[in-house]
Amino acid sequence: MTPNQYTPEEPISSIATALSPAALGIVRVSGRGCIELVSKVFSRSKALLEAPGNTLVYGWILDADKKIDEVMLAVYRAPKSFTGEDMVEIFCHGGPAVVTAIQNLMLKIGFRQANRGEYTFRAFINGKTDLTRAEAVKEIIDSHTDVSRSHAAGRLAGSLFSEIDSIKKLIIDTLAAIEVEIEYPEDEETIADSFDRGDIEAAASRLQALADSWRGEKLYQDGARVVLAGRTNAGKSSLFNAILKEERAIVSDIEGTTRDWLESWASINGIPVRLFDTAGLRETSDVIEAQGVEISRSLVHDADVVLYLVDSQSGLNDEDCEFIENCSEPLIVVETKIDKAAAPEKSSPDNTGRCGVSPLEGVASNEVRARGSLSPSVCRISSKTGDGLSELFARISDILTAGLSTERTQAGLGSARQKEAVSAALESVRHALVSADDNYTLDAVVQDLEDALDSLGEVTGDVTPDDVLGSIFANFCVGK
Amino acid sequence: MTPNQYTPEEPISSIATALSPAALGIVRVSGRGCIELVSKVFSRSKALLEAPGNTLVYGWILDADKKIDEVMLAVYRAPKSFTGEDMVEIFCHGGPAVVTAIQNLMLKIGFRQANRGEYTFRAFINGKTDLTRAEAVKEIIDSHTDVSRSHAAGRLAGSLFSEIDSIKKLIIDTLAAIEVEIEYPEDEETIADSFDRGDIEAAASRLQALADSWRGEKLYQDGARVVLAGRTNAGKSSLFNAILKEERAIVSDIEGTTRDWLESWASINGIPVRLFDTAGLRETSDVIEAQGVEISRSLVHDADVVLYLVDSQSGLNDEDCEFIENCSEPLIVVETKIDKAAAPEKSSPDNTGRCGVSPLEGVASNEVRARGSLSPSVCRISSKTGDGLSELFARISDILTAGLSTERTQAGLGSARQKEAVSAALESVRHALVSADDNYTLDAVVQDLEDALDSLGEVTGDVTPDDVLGSIFANFCVGK
Repeated sequence: MTPNQYTPEEPISSIATALSPAALGIVRVSGRGCIELVSKVFSRSKALLEAPGNTLVYGWILDADKKIDEVMLAVYRAPKSFTGEDMVEIFCHGGPAVVTAIQNLMLKIGFRQANRGEYTFRAFINGKTDLTRAEAVKEIIDSHTDVSRSHAAGRLAGSLFSEIDSIKKLIIDTLAAIEVEIEYPEDEETIADSFDRGDIEAAASRLQALADSWRGEKLYQDGARVVLAGRTNAGKSSLFNAILKEERAIVSDIEGTTRDWLESWASINGIPVRLFDTAGLRETSDVIEAQGVEISRSLVHDADVVLYLVDSQSGLNDEDCEFIENCSEPLIVVETKIDKAAAPEKSSPDNTGRCGVSPLEGVASNEVRARGSLSPSVCRISSKTGDGLSELFARISDILTAGLSTERTQAGLGSARQKEAVSAALESVRHALVSADDNYTLDAVVQDLEDALDSLGEVTGDVTPDDVLGSIFANFCVGK
Repeated sequence: MTPNQYTPEEPISSIATALSPAALGIVRVSGRGCIELVSKVFSRSKALLEAPGNTLVYGWILDADKKIDEVMLAVYRAPKSFTGEDMVEIFCHGGPAVVTAIQNLMLKIGFRQANRGEYTFRAFINGKTDLTRAEAVKEIIDSHTDVSRSHAAGRLAGSLFSEIDSIKKLIIDTLAAIEVEIEYPEDEETIADSFDRGDIEAAASRLQALADSWRGEKLYQDGARVVLAGRTNAGKSSLFNAILKEERAIVSDIEGTTRDWLESWASINGIPVRLFDTAGLRETSDVIEAQGVEISRSLVHDADVVLYLVDSQSGLNDEDCEFIENCSEPLIVVETKIDKAAAPEKSSPDNTGRCGVSPLEGVASNEVRARGSLSPSVCRISSKTGDGLSELFARISDILTAGLSTERTQAGLGSARQKEAVSAALESVRHALVSADDNYTLDAVVQDLEDALDSLGEVTGDVTPDDVLGSIFANFCVGK
């Protein structure tokens, strides 16, 4: 899809809620004449046509004489609507058959099926939102934990837009001063006189902070993959269930989950984590096992953190050591079933020092194993009592956030696209500083600063090429 | 849950849309003071407090200073709302994290989580709806095909209520005439004088029609199970996919689908059908096969119609005949891949007459095989070209609707509960007719007719015991 396919004002319609049985569903229409169109299939058409903006009208959706559903219509009149156009939101019963029947009726009477993100695109071109806020809409819908949602809500409220705007002002002020210098070169002072180094250095450092924020924001958006591995009866399923019970992430089930492994979203200290349990892979017949080992290997390979479980009652054997020594992903060895241990010294009879795994007493809490390091972190837990789980979560979260700035700037970046543009702006601003240091001509500095402004304009959407727009909105869900 | 747990006017809140990522989501609150409660966490509390009923207010949901989401509030003021109480519907972004965060905030500020069906229950006790319409709400949400939805919409619009009401009038008029006779027994005429047999016979026949409608309505509500069986490569997966492509029912995917068999909703001539493909059951290793055969057998056993597929190129073998002869469920033999047949006489080389399966030419279209009959119906199809599919659908639909009244009365019954009450009313009315025939006392006839009215009152909810109410609304989804 290209933005050319977005035809402003053409009446569009789409289902805006999930197609699962629920109390309520919404079909959303927007565009020129949309209120009149809907009135043709509404039992109280006069009431609808006369309804002021921001009001609700009760009635039935009718297809000829057939009653489709009893609904409330939310009526919005341009420009006071999400898209800035006339809009109607049809609040109907939430059965898939109902919302589908209403949407099909809308298509029949002259609406076009809305493209992904087309409502938000219209909001953008009608000046109701900038790109940072538009992208935050998608982000807030997709967020998997409350922390992720809260970051997105900040951007939706304009935190990123304000920060970018304020950085732009620093650059614009400097540019204005330089322009005066160029137009009225009263004396032969050096470039340093009209170039406010402090402002541009401040801009550079704030851009740097924004660029640095992206890795952390991305973690909260996309989540991390945590894989549970270990021998049969090491306690993988128990831990899987204990984590979900404690820290179930706020999502619906993952699509395409198969019997090959268990998979679910969990929230680990607010970080969305896709949790994989390889349990069962080795517990079937031989043919299946070969596949299982392959799948298990690829899950481990793609993991951001591997939890290798060892039953504290049986301790490490050669198979465990082989896995731990060969695993090149960040690894935490998890001693399970510690509730069963009679006394600490008995709990891990043959663990001490085996294959680089220190017993718990010897492991400092910050001794997180870096990729490829030989000394994996060890956690001791009981899935039954919950003991040790919060320490385990802290370790996982330490690994995932290692190297991220601990203090999140209020205005973090919300997409890779924004990161790219901010990095380009940062480079231009730095180049301007170098040009000024080297006493280049004022024109060269002006060019750098204007490049920086262009890049920042891309972030908010002041200057954004069509193809960029197309790819932004094509990632939205339909109905938004 | 019992209706005692429904406490009218207590402020309640719940998520009213499905918990999957979507453009929009709704959190719904109702009860005394609910507008004031929401205003405490709303950025424009004054605008909300002053909003007239049936209007929309834009703003942010806030938890202290933290922004939760940008929303539109639909404000309803008692008694003009779904429940008849003050209500607010919070239209937020459709991310599971967002709607969950808002619902959690509502619980924090004093709302109670709404029970299943509690909004509709309040609508019922506040006289906004009768029980037939209340039950239609649940039905319309759960409907799997457009025909099912349309039946439910009729009941939601009051078709069943009107029919019951009109039958009640017939009985009430008769009762009134008898009461006059009892109060003023001017002469010693027989019972026949005051007893309008015609009205009561009309009532009986209309009640009978209603009672008869239930089997058909139930079919359109619950759907039927159609199972595809046959040897490997008989074309099961191709037919499964062809049916879905042609007649996909309007539903989300079935929960709990496993790799053991494929399963999906389909719409066969408007009848919701749960289609099972047993393909793959026999195509794995031995251990699995044993399980597969067991699963396959139980799927077939629970089927309303079994489609037994035979490749027209290879014809019937002993295994096929054994299945066909032993299958005690309604069965259609489906000859597949007829597009590959060079000429009709070559298409089924050794089918003729084997195990009671006549070749196509010998089978009349109405020769539907009854349960246990020896002569199964045969259809010839090509999943590739679509040839024969509509005939197959007609056969399936014939079997499923066999014995159902072909003409659907406009007012069909919507639940087993209604069926029970209508049957009781029918029995009482019939008893009244017998009592009148046998010249029982007028008091006996009055008692019968009053019993009938009580039963009909249960259908609409005029007189409904608390435990019945409890079970009706406990089946609803939360938020409705």
